[in-house]
Formats: sequence, structure tokens, C-alpha cells
Amino acid sequence: MTEEPKPRRLTPKGRATRDRIIEAATELIARNGVAGTGIEDVRAAAGVSGSQLYHYFDSKQALIRAVITRQADSVLHPDQPRVTALDSFDALRAWADAAIERQRENGCRGDCTLGSLAGELSVSDEESRTDLATGFLRWKDLILDGLRAMRDRGGLRADADLDELALSLLTALQGGVLLSQTMLHVRPLEAAMNASLAYVHSFATTAGR
Amino acid sequence: MTEEPKPRRLTPKGRATRDRIIEAATELIARNGVAGTGIEDVRAAAGVSGSQLYHYFDSKQALIRAVITRQADSVLHPDQPRVTALDSFDALRAWADAAIERQRENGCRGDCTLGSLAGELSVSDEESRTDLATGFLRWKDLILDGLRAMRDRGGLRADADLDELALSLLTALQGGVLLSQTMLHVRPLEAAMNASLAYVHSFATTAGR
Repeated sequence: MTEEPKPRRLTPKGRATRDRIIEAATELIARNGVAGTGIEDVRAAAGVSGSQLYHYFDSKQALIRAVITRQADSVLHPDQPRVTALDSFDALRAWADAAIERQRENGCRGDCTLGSLAGELSVSDEESRTDLATGFLRWKDLILDGLRAMRDRGGLRADADLDELALSLLTALQGGVLLSQTMLHVRPLEAAMNASLAYVHSFATTAGR
Repeated sequence: MTEEPKPRRLTPKGRATRDRIIEAATELIARNGVAGTGIEDVRAAAGVSGSQLYHYFDSKQALIRAVITRQADSVLHPDQPRVTALDSFDALRAWADAAIERQRENGCRGDCTLGSLAGELSVSDEESRTDLATGFLRWKDLILDGLRAMRDRGGLRADADLDELALSLLTALQGGVLLSQTMLHVRPLEAAMNASLAYVHSFATTAGR
């Protein structure tokens, strides 16, 4: 993330307006994709004037980058408590179940994930690709922190490749959501999470099982 | 797949022209995404006239559907022999290694996969979503055929949920390629394939190991 306009020096009201614009953009992109979302649609959905919108985002590209950052941040958001401490097999299972339940609730539609953004943006837009890669790395590091804590407590074998385990969990989540949203069924996500959780579990110590 | 113009009644020359157009579109989409690929770009890259192109594809949508079908078909293509019989642990490992090697060779760039097409098209385009879901199902069934053969030979336990195993392998491949293309590194794909292959292997019988 290099030049995204930062919300520094914003008044509380300005920050709320900026957040409302990003939220409206995220919802529209979830329904219509990036290509199907025009800046005028975002303006209308957020209920702001054109000059207000351009005050915060001088281009669609800047707005898309803010959406990517928001989605990458969401993993750390306080309303997702299960995601903040993935440091036990139970916590990992609960995290997977929450993701599966979320897809089930919304009929596998209408989620604006880093994975679907990556499918749309990574090949064609180098700036967005970089932002998305940064977002994926932050998720991976969060998962890695939990796995390290598990290993340090003696629950995972010392020779486990924690980086690989973290990547397999992240890939299962993103790939699983992508296939579930395409096939309109929660089974691909369930299968992917079961496989990656079993892989992590195969490195459990006797004490950790 | 409901109304895609079929290449029936085409002369060999007509079929070659149609194939050349689809191939040019696939290559451009791999580089620039669907949104970044115009029908005029495809026409120029394929070296055909506008009336030739419209003879085979009356809209960009029709062309995109043909690209999706081509990419779904590629799994069965004779130049991918490793993919046609995924009926042993060695064959599954060779299939994973071939996918990993392919990403390594092209620097994790420039692949037009069903997964990246799904990220771009599934949320916004119901016809494409249906085609992509059909494509994923065909891949899954191909993998499933191999797993059934393994079970019937006594290599996989009778209680293994083969449908789940097939979905986990497919999701690992698609999610892994998507994250590898975003992070420009082959590690996410390697991690995802290792995890899903280990999951399949955890259902091996003593004889199958």
C-alpha cells in the first residue's frame, strides 16, 4: 500500500462520511463486481454529493484500494472476535465454522472477499494486486501468530512448517468461498476447511490432540 | 450451458477460425482480465475481420462463455495426460506438481483459470456463473472418478467421503492458483496442494499407503 489517501486529520464527521462511502462501495461490489460498480452508483448509495466523494477519493482506483484495505482490516475487527486469536484447534474450528455459517446464511452470495477481488483485479491491475497481496500477508501472519502460540505451548510439533500451515488455511478459506459463491453451495468451503484443519491437526503433538 | 453457439456444421476452416478467436480471447483475458479485454482487441489479436468475429460470436458475452467452456474442457485435453487418470496417490501428486511447475515457469502470471474467471464474473454475471459452476462440476467429477477407482481397488477406505475429497482437491488447486497469482509466489499453491493431498492420504487403507 503506497499512496492510498489516509484518513488522517479527518474530523469525526469526515471520517464517518468516508467510512459510509467505503461501506456503500463494498456492498455494491459484493453484488455487482468491481467492473459493474460505477462511482456514481457509490455516490448515490452513500447519499453524498459528487464533490464530497471526490474530496475523499479522487478516482475509482483510490476507492477500490480503500475497499481492499477495509476487507483486509476486517479480520482484526472487534465484531469478529473469533478471528482474533486462532491459537487452538477449537479456535481454528470455530473460525472455519463461522465462515461456513456466514456463507450458508447469505446463500453463498453477496460477499466481497479478498479472494473474489483478487480474481477480478490481480491479473489486470498491478496496484490492486499489490494491495491484495499485502492483505493476504496480513491474514496469513495473523493465522501464523496463533499457530506459533500453539507450537510454543507444545500443542504442535516443533518440526511443523507453520508458514505452510497458515497458507493452507488461508487458501482453503479464500478458494472455498470463491467456489461456494460460484457453485451456490457451501460444500466446497466445508471440504476445503476440513482438509486444511486436518492437515494442521496432523502436526499435533500427543499433548495437543 | 444453455445457449452457447455450438461449432456444429462448421467447416474445418471455420472451426479453425473460431478456435483462433477463442484462443486469442483466452490469452488477452489472462493478461488483462475480462473487463480489460475488448472485442476489438480480440479481433485484432486473432487477425480476423469484424464480420468474421460476429459470425461466430454475436456478443462479448458469447465469447466469454466460449472461453469458460474451453478452460473447463482443457482438463480433458490430450496434451494434459497427467490430468486424465487421477486414480493413484502418485497420479494425484504428479497432477499437483504439474500445476505448481506451471505457475513457477510463468512467474505466477498470465493464467486464465476458472478460478480467476469466477472471481471476476460470478458475482455480477449469472450466465457466466452457471457456466463456471458447470465447469467446476466437470473437474470435480473427473477427480471423483479417479478417487472411486482408488477406493474400488482397495486403496481408499470405504467410509471416505469421496465427494468431499474431490472438492477439497479442486478448491486447493483453484484457491492456490488464485493466491499464487496475487502474491506472485508459488508457496500458496504448494501449501494448498500439500494439505489436500495429505487429507486424501489420511483415508488410505494400509494396502493403499
